[in-house]
Amino acid sequence: MRGFFEPDTVAVIGVSTSESNLGRQISANMSRFEFNGIVYEVGLKGGSLFGRRIYRSVSDIPDHIDLAVILTPAQTVPEIMRECGRKGVRRVIIETAGFGEYGEEGRALQERTAEIAVEHGVRFIGPNCIGVVNKLNGLATPFVSLDPSVRRGGISVITQSGGVGISVLNVLASEGLGLAKMASVGNKIDIAENELLEYFIEDPDTDIICMYLEGINDGERMIELARRSPKPILVQKSNTGSAARGIASSHTAALSADDDVVDAALRQSGMARFRDAETLVHYLKALALPPLEGNRLVVLSRSGGHAVIAADECEAAGFELAVLPQRFLNEVQSHLRANVIRLTNPMDLGDLFELELYGALAERTLAMDNVDGMVFLHTYMAGTEAEQSEELFRNLYQLSQDQGKPIAIHAATVATELSRLKRTLEGPIFSEPSDAVRSLAHLRDYGQFEVLSNERPDGPADAETVRAIFDTCRSESRDPLIQEVMAVARAYGVPVVDGHLVDDVEGAVKAANALGYPVAIKVVSSDISHKSDMGGVQLNLRSDQGVRLAYEDMMRRLRNKAPNARIDAVIVQPMVVGGRELILGARRDANFGHVVLVGMGGVFVEVFNDTAIRVAPFEGDTALQMLEQLQIYPILHGVRGQSPADVDALVEAVTSVARLVTDFPEIVEMDLNPLLALDAGNGCVALDARMHLEPSAGADA
Amino acid sequence: MRGFFEPDTVAVIGVSTSESNLGRQISANMSRFEFNGIVYEVGLKGGSLFGRRIYRSVSDIPDHIDLAVILTPAQTVPEIMRECGRKGVRRVIIETAGFGEYGEEGRALQERTAEIAVEHGVRFIGPNCIGVVNKLNGLATPFVSLDPSVRRGGISVITQSGGVGISVLNVLASEGLGLAKMASVGNKIDIAENELLEYFIEDPDTDIICMYLEGINDGERMIELARRSPKPILVQKSNTGSAARGIASSHTAALSADDDVVDAALRQSGMARFRDAETLVHYLKALALPPLEGNRLVVLSRSGGHAVIAADECEAAGFELAVLPQRFLNEVQSHLRANVIRLTNPMDLGDLFELELYGALAERTLAMDNVDGMVFLHTYMAGTEAEQSEELFRNLYQLSQDQGKPIAIHAATVATELSRLKRTLEGPIFSEPSDAVRSLAHLRDYGQFEVLSNERPDGPADAETVRAIFDTCRSESRDPLIQEVMAVARAYGVPVVDGHLVDDVEGAVKAANALGYPVAIKVVSSDISHKSDMGGVQLNLRSDQGVRLAYEDMMRRLRNKAPNARIDAVIVQPMVVGGRELILGARRDANFGHVVLVGMGGVFVEVFNDTAIRVAPFEGDTALQMLEQLQIYPILHGVRGQSPADVDALVEAVTSVARLVTDFPEIVEMDLNPLLALDAGNGCVALDARMHLEPSAGADA
Repeated sequence: MRGFFEPDTVAVIGVSTSESNLGRQISANMSRFEFNGIVYEVGLKGGSLFGRRIYRSVSDIPDHIDLAVILTPAQTVPEIMRECGRKGVRRVIIETAGFGEYGEEGRALQERTAEIAVEHGVRFIGPNCIGVVNKLNGLATPFVSLDPSVRRGGISVITQSGGVGISVLNVLASEGLGLAKMASVGNKIDIAENELLEYFIEDPDTDIICMYLEGINDGERMIELARRSPKPILVQKSNTGSAARGIASSHTAALSADDDVVDAALRQSGMARFRDAETLVHYLKALALPPLEGNRLVVLSRSGGHAVIAADECEAAGFELAVLPQRFLNEVQSHLRANVIRLTNPMDLGDLFELELYGALAERTLAMDNVDGMVFLHTYMAGTEAEQSEELFRNLYQLSQDQGKPIAIHAATVATELSRLKRTLEGPIFSEPSDAVRSLAHLRDYGQFEVLSNERPDGPADAETVRAIFDTCRSESRDPLIQEVMAVARAYGVPVVDGHLVDDVEGAVKAANALGYPVAIKVVSSDISHKSDMGGVQLNLRSDQGVRLAYEDMMRRLRNKAPNARIDAVIVQPMVVGGRELILGARRDANFGHVVLVGMGGVFVEVFNDTAIRVAPFEGDTALQMLEQLQIYPILHGVRGQSPADVDALVEAVTSVARLVTDFPEIVEMDLNPLLALDAGNGCVALDARMHLEPSAGADA
Repeated sequence: MRGFFEPDTVAVIGVSTSESNLGRQISANMSRFEFNGIVYEVGLKGGSLFGRRIYRSVSDIPDHIDLAVILTPAQTVPEIMRECGRKGVRRVIIETAGFGEYGEEGRALQERTAEIAVEHGVRFIGPNCIGVVNKLNGLATPFVSLDPSVRRGGISVITQSGGVGISVLNVLASEGLGLAKMASVGNKIDIAENELLEYFIEDPDTDIICMYLEGINDGERMIELARRSPKPILVQKSNTGSAARGIASSHTAALSADDDVVDAALRQSGMARFRDAETLVHYLKALALPPLEGNRLVVLSRSGGHAVIAADECEAAGFELAVLPQRFLNEVQSHLRANVIRLTNPMDLGDLFELELYGALAERTLAMDNVDGMVFLHTYMAGTEAEQSEELFRNLYQLSQDQGKPIAIHAATVATELSRLKRTLEGPIFSEPSDAVRSLAHLRDYGQFEVLSNERPDGPADAETVRAIFDTCRSESRDPLIQEVMAVARAYGVPVVDGHLVDDVEGAVKAANALGYPVAIKVVSSDISHKSDMGGVQLNLRSDQGVRLAYEDMMRRLRNKAPNARIDAVIVQPMVVGGRELILGARRDANFGHVVLVGMGGVFVEVFNDTAIRVAPFEGDTALQMLEQLQIYPILHGVRGQSPADVDALVEAVTSVARLVTDFPEIVEMDLNPLLALDAGNGCVALDARMHLEPSAGADA
């Protein structure tokens, strides 16, 4: 990968002397960024540019070429790739568009190009991209003219869209954030995000990695890389909904993923997701500060209004405002002779016009044991107070580093001064009080991302029973029936309700008497998946007569609503009352493998969509985290006057499902719904179950 | 009010020749903003400034003074006010801090100053403020040096914090938004927000009004003004939580309000609330565009990545992407000879490098019947494409005006070019694709703010019954008991469950038999407000024996948990089963008068907090809007396989409560909880009720 970022010689192929030629812009960017290697231009018509010869072919260049950048019409690319291969070029960037993102013809061109590359041992980035930028050596291959004023720093960027990449560079430049390297991957035919991610994780010049992705090529590998990255990885994954799908596929041939799964997978592997440039900037600025080890902030502000706004934001973001002890305040007060300061938190410095005292005050306050970080809001006049204020900011930044606690500084001043500050100061400056607080919230939350174990969880696992059931189902080319899914769940330790399979009404009555009233009866049919909608469920039956009537009624309804369905049997279950309805399930995701879902069940499920998802496998601490993440967790945990649910049993059930899908990858989807969470000590129990297996290619294996 | 904004002569009191004097900054701002009147400086030490004499006293000025601006130590202010009064000055701005926001002593000074002002017929703004700015005549009284580059326009600002006011000016300047007038009101001792609001509503120079408030002086009057304002009013109301309360009170002596009520009141009277500068900018830019009459957008983008991001944002914001008919696309294609454009929505213009075609394409697309607005995302190179792009933006802006549909333009380019654009172009330019989409979402939502009737709703209103009950309660210095609240509710048309009051266990059995089993029994005691927590409710009793056991058990628990409570009686009610639990209530808000609340009830009430609030009075359409606003509305309306609830009856119940609190202002708080919503046609019914009346100052009236 270094070959792409640290070439000594670069050939830009597709350059002409015409004003509108885009290849020229690549050479212009190289000189604007002061590339420290040698650039050769190549173009069919020859001529000269920047005092250099434009060679008519890459083979004419009288030098070894480390990296070739191609921006010629799509149909010429395969032959140029061949020429590069013959010349011994081992790294190529194809910027040309009009390939796989554009239809059948383009896809064929793309494949031919890739074959030729493999033949000659060439690795390439693209096509349909703007290539790479390396702020450290001045390599800059985009064909769009770039602002070279972006600072040098530790942020490296992987982007699937060139346009978004340029926007990120512009944002970094205007916010004064420092770039290391950027790569735009386009259609990702050879080099894709994971190889770059791996490179940036190792790269000593890179401290923070940002990715913009429209599709994910190998989610499981990405998780693996991210899990062991010591560097923060920030991800914008767009193409989240149906609206974007068409354009993303025609733009970079990206397929969309289930967005909730993307959320879960990123978080689980320690990656932070952002959804707009503003949030990216919040993260990047926060990560330039020492970590926020707790939740207690102090707000110092020269404007009372800003202090109020910041206090509101702190509360909205879940921060506590540290209580500063009176003794400390008195001491500060005498020390500073600052009778005009209102010593509370937020602290309004409004009437104190000696800026040097601000620093002293900040130092004393930040040093307190019950203060984890600070928001400093400084309004000042661009003309008369600029120098003093800049000095203050430098001191605050130093103080923050010395004490190892973050200070988020907001400067309220005119726009030109603010933009000058951002471009010159070492530490970050926030444009609004709300930005400073939200940024610290990101820092806190990111610090709490725990990358938990992704081992297969231990516990009951009677794999033979499950294998036998699946073999039967596959040999009969059908999905498991309710009692089979129940048996599978039980074999892996998930408690399920007792059930007797019966064939007729008298069998049902006998089963009901054996189980004890009240009972429920449910139809068993591989042709009917939404039983209750079809009238295939009868609850709360309290007598033989009740069972008889309900049985007949159920059959009548089924004959009406699903006349062609084969009825396999009827299951009789004891009614379980009380408890809280949850849903527990799993499904196989195309990007990340199996995911497990747990959430609120019952009538409100569709309006509140209160669910938690994780990629399997995982152990109990992750399962507990899932439950804690639910809005209804306070109810499971026991709110005012209500008994708590058996959370331990729920954790067991969730990990059991994770264990099951890890052992049996052929499970495409499964649902335990409802899963009743009983009171603490009484466990939980699944009342109904469904499962879909992969169609049996290997049924007889 | 014009006297504050259009004076011919201004005296700045508190000016000295010292470098650090703040009064000088006021004079400097006046000249920077090119004030078209005459400025006199006043300062005890005399001297000269800007070639003008500094008078030692306001009475020395040999001219009539229209407006005096005071920035002298707090304790000197009353006498200076008196001097101004004697001199015939009728408008004064007091910028000095250290008054009511600072404690007892300051409050006394403040009162004395106000008395002197009244004595001399002086109206004043402040104290503790930065006064006013009028971009039209160059009046600029802040003592902080201001950026005069802010454009002239139709935005007027009322701010309770000077610091926030300056931040708003900075934001307007950097975003190229045009200012008309600003007033900073500080402690609001004389002139407060409503008087300014009224002035700006009438002011021909003002098109849009922005307010920053930490407290609201007279919410009912504000609602009245806003309801008939033809101009958009945007409000940032901070000081929303307990964290801000202390500092806001010490900063501008503001008292905090119930934030949900503020939300409701603003929305109900057509004001839009914003919470940060970013959202303010979104609103202001959107309001510079034609209204968005529908929900169907088209996205045109030069970068595919930006198109994807915009499509995601559109989906998140609830927009539809208009489907462009194939015939139209074909025609456009032949017309434009643009084979390289992917004619979908979003439309990726990526490979089309002739900018003049963009305008033609935008015109044809925007004209379509099923397109209500457009997002135009334009990436360009600052150097070579700046002129052409600016031309394009001007054409798009014109097009938007001509067709009466909004086009939100995002320019992706380097920061310096972006900031130049914002300061020079007539129409708004957005910094990020997400900003463009979110801004249109604000425009759409704001357009849908319906200011509904605030008449007292018609309906049953047996005021005599209610009056009699309240008189009894007041004469006994107690709140109404459950059966009295039930009677009150019934008198105003809210259905309540039957109930028999009994004194002993046998009475309860008799009542149960009269009502029919199953029944519930509940304690009636003005000393016990949370009955169930005390064991004072027994549900689902099915036999005489059950009633007896439950009665004794209840009494035992009450003796344990509330040994001193007086038990007034026990109420026996029939059990009502089925239906969905809601809560319906009202309370008197200090700022806005009575508000009515309806929401989800039952066990989930605390975790989902799914409630809707409106200021009373209001009619049925508002009540329906409240119900529709609930997350559980789909369930009331009837989701998959479930029968709908009686929404009409709920609307009646909500308006009945609005009618009741309108007629009886002495109701401090009332709760009907649970209110059971039965299936459509079966109405709704309150099962329990509580009420708190104003302590009876006029008990015998």
